[in-house]
Amino acid sequence: MNVRVSWRYSLSLTGTIVKWLAAPLCFPLLVAVYYAEPVAPFLVTIGVALGGGGLLERLKRLDGEERLGPREALLMVSLTWLLVALVSAVPFVVAGQGTIAHPINAAFESMSGITTTGATVLRQFDIHARSIMMWRQLTQWLGGLGILILATAILSRLSVGGAQLMETETQYDNVDKLTPHIEDTARLIGKLYAGLTLGTVAVLYILYLVGLAPNMTLYNSVAHAFTSVSTAGFSTEPLSIEAFAPVVHWVLIVVMFLGSTSFVLMYFVLQGNLARLRNSEEFRFYLGTVIVFSGLIVTILLLKENPTGTGVSDTFRQSVFNVVSIITTTGYANANFDLWSPFAKHLLLMCMFLGGMAGSTTCSIKSLRWLVVFKAFRRDLFTVIHPEAIRPVRLSGVTVDEDTIRNIYSYTLIAIVGVFFVTVLIVVDGARTGLYLVEGGFGEFDALGAAASTFLNIGPAFGPAGPYGTYDVFSMSTKAALVVFMWIGRIEIIPVLVLFTRSFWQS
Amino acid sequence: MNVRVSWRYSLSLTGTIVKWLAAPLCFPLLVAVYYAEPVAPFLVTIGVALGGGGLLERLKRLDGEERLGPREALLMVSLTWLLVALVSAVPFVVAGQGTIAHPINAAFESMSGITTTGATVLRQFDIHARSIMMWRQLTQWLGGLGILILATAILSRLSVGGAQLMETETQYDNVDKLTPHIEDTARLIGKLYAGLTLGTVAVLYILYLVGLAPNMTLYNSVAHAFTSVSTAGFSTEPLSIEAFAPVVHWVLIVVMFLGSTSFVLMYFVLQGNLARLRNSEEFRFYLGTVIVFSGLIVTILLLKENPTGTGVSDTFRQSVFNVVSIITTTGYANANFDLWSPFAKHLLLMCMFLGGMAGSTTCSIKSLRWLVVFKAFRRDLFTVIHPEAIRPVRLSGVTVDEDTIRNIYSYTLIAIVGVFFVTVLIVVDGARTGLYLVEGGFGEFDALGAAASTFLNIGPAFGPAGPYGTYDVFSMSTKAALVVFMWIGRIEIIPVLVLFTRSFWQS
Ligand SMILES: [K+]
Ligand SMILES: [K+]
Repeated sequence: MNVRVSWRYSLSLTGTIVKWLAAPLCFPLLVAVYYAEPVAPFLVTIGVALGGGGLLERLKRLDGEERLGPREALLMVSLTWLLVALVSAVPFVVAGQGTIAHPINAAFESMSGITTTGATVLRQFDIHARSIMMWRQLTQWLGGLGILILATAILSRLSVGGAQLMETETQYDNVDKLTPHIEDTARLIGKLYAGLTLGTVAVLYILYLVGLAPNMTLYNSVAHAFTSVSTAGFSTEPLSIEAFAPVVHWVLIVVMFLGSTSFVLMYFVLQGNLARLRNSEEFRFYLGTVIVFSGLIVTILLLKENPTGTGVSDTFRQSVFNVVSIITTTGYANANFDLWSPFAKHLLLMCMFLGGMAGSTTCSIKSLRWLVVFKAFRRDLFTVIHPEAIRPVRLSGVTVDEDTIRNIYSYTLIAIVGVFFVTVLIVVDGARTGLYLVEGGFGEFDALGAAASTFLNIGPAFGPAGPYGTYDVFSMSTKAALVVFMWIGRIEIIPVLVLFTRSFWQS
Repeated sequence: MNVRVSWRYSLSLTGTIVKWLAAPLCFPLLVAVYYAEPVAPFLVTIGVALGGGGLLERLKRLDGEERLGPREALLMVSLTWLLVALVSAVPFVVAGQGTIAHPINAAFESMSGITTTGATVLRQFDIHARSIMMWRQLTQWLGGLGILILATAILSRLSVGGAQLMETETQYDNVDKLTPHIEDTARLIGKLYAGLTLGTVAVLYILYLVGLAPNMTLYNSVAHAFTSVSTAGFSTEPLSIEAFAPVVHWVLIVVMFLGSTSFVLMYFVLQGNLARLRNSEEFRFYLGTVIVFSGLIVTILLLKENPTGTGVSDTFRQSVFNVVSIITTTGYANANFDLWSPFAKHLLLMCMFLGGMAGSTTCSIKSLRWLVVFKAFRRDLFTVIHPEAIRPVRLSGVTVDEDTIRNIYSYTLIAIVGVFFVTVLIVVDGARTGLYLVEGGFGEFDALGAAASTFLNIGPAFGPAGPYGTYDVFSMSTKAALVVFMWIGRIEIIPVLVLFTRSFWQS
């Protein structure tokens, strides 16, 4: 069994995916043609994708065996997110406009897109071609699709941080199977994702047509459907969703919430299987976090003056929107929450660590893991008092394996420790470049927010990198490091870490 | 088996301990007599201890059964640290000098003493009677003794955060047993603790007598022996150990290091069993953290200008001293490390989470737990690649139970999450009282440092609560909350948390 990892085979699979990037690149190309903008950025990138991807793909022939074991799958996943992000950065460099003309900034924006993070280094939005801005939005939609397939088809079959616990078609023996085959599952989930996107476009554009959302043109409807369904968060507007009418905010609250709901669960509900929804403790927990944190923030903002709006209606909409945006890890904003009180901002920071349901486009630690952590911890308290008792942890009625609980604890711990290390990195590099604790620079809380927001793939943070700010305030070295950490965080940390163990490469 | 918790019995045992507090109170009483200072603070407290403790002790007669199960033990531990801290605060209130005349401040100083934290709310040191200052030192020595007995005799026998893994006399079958009885172990460890204290007094006082440490009088020798052996950190000097000659710093580095070394291990080494030391992976890990962090900080301070001293010798001594002080969770300082660079300060913050060896007077998460976390995490990475493999985690050659690994993960996680919650509490209350992010107030990093330093029982933090500062900058409500968190943190969190579960009180 323990033969060498077939890295050529992994690389060739990645090559195939990179090659196929040429297809979605045709969309911004068409947008460019329609608006008579330069087409070179996309033509060049299509060439790079086809050429580079094709070359990598041919490596397969050099490997005797075509074996996709856990190691090949993990290597392929890591390489795919890395290479797709690098190729997706090419249009920004070729277009040569604004901050993202610089290769490191382009890599930041592209990695932020592909990982559905939504952190931006843009300083000016209106200098960029519409086709470039649409490509930026599309990278997030592609990243969301990629993560759905990764989660349901690959990670759930490996013991990566308890991912095997997520809602799957074969989880409960007493429910009808969604479908017996992996590829069919992926296809159904892909269709659901596409359907949700088209539905969002339709609703937003209808609001425009009936005059309820004046600036939600077809272009903007597509652009924001791409980044809400994928809980990704890029906007074409510097003021994010505040640029649009309140009704749009409520529509997007629903879309973000659905984007962070298990797609398998959603499929069952669409099939009329409401028992599955009622049975899902994870869904209740996820909904509970949204309600509790929205309630806390709306109370805080109403008790003290709300610096970003007037009246109960504004405050309520802003609280719910930004809490949903952060918990679902979307990262849109409809108010500059950086102006809120320290208490409210710290609650948002907590929300960053939550995340939505496993098996969705959500990032961060996810409600599944926190729920298991809470249940296991309560069980452990019981066991301290009753050492002789055997009390398994049950999730939605099913006993959770003790190894899985351990994996979930370790994943949660490594994610939190990871955020802390990224914070230190941002602070140390910021102190070196004179940005830390100076007027116009950033403080410890801002650094912590930026670390959590990138490593956990949320998007906006606080201070200069706040919802209406830009990550361009950070030095090139910090931004380069954040590219790496967005990558590691998005694919659930473990796939990258195993690459650095000796046993991964040993036969 | 599942009868009601015998809370009266727990309370009566606590009463006995409180009653016995009268004995150590005689020491500062004698100091007061010697220096002709007021004796009322100690006479009153002796009365409170004998009266209150005696009354509680009589509750036993109301309980039919005298059964010390896990629940009774945990309740007794929680109550003991709480009540002993409250009674120990009485002398400060009765003396009526300075900040600690206020009951909440007195409770803070006393809890900080009993929990061997070493965070102080004193503003002026020289206005207090020598007897009061000696009592303050002695509370820490008593707290250290208490924790040694708690760790080796009680926690190691319950599944509290993997405490059962610590070095014990019966751990390895192939080594001679230290002693077969719990009480004997406790007695031997108590003797070792007393011996180490006397040795420290002797060395420090000899340095004074030969003129190498001009101000290390017998009084100061005793005062600092009390708080170094117990890795507790109170000093009679506002400048902590910087007030003494460099040779004292090196002596205390050794004492702090020993105080955070497993006392069982130390006993074996004194018996000539060096194999046990060579075999201890935890000891190597503990020593390793001290060397690595000292090395990093000395490098940083030498590369950039050291703001607290000149020359390699000063910088080396300051780096090693403060790293040992923080890792052992003592909290002495021989330089105002709050002036160091952000990188160095963040390294010290990391050290706060480390701690020394289990089965010593150390606080924080402890090297035992981190070592198991690292080993288990490396094993889990291996298992991701080789799902079919069974690879147990081994510590010093012995297989670690998977339940214990899970307990250690959960303990580490709850400790880190706890620090984060205390940080938010400090920030929110600080913002309310106008101390957060204002000139002369504290920032996010300072709040994080104060939270870690109190919940993990280190002592000094950064900013206004830095090594030469005072926790008196915080509001009364923050200080009251920190009293609770020092208490919860010192007795390893779980004993207090179980009190809040329903099953604890159910029959
Ligand atoms: K996002
Ligand atoms: K301490």
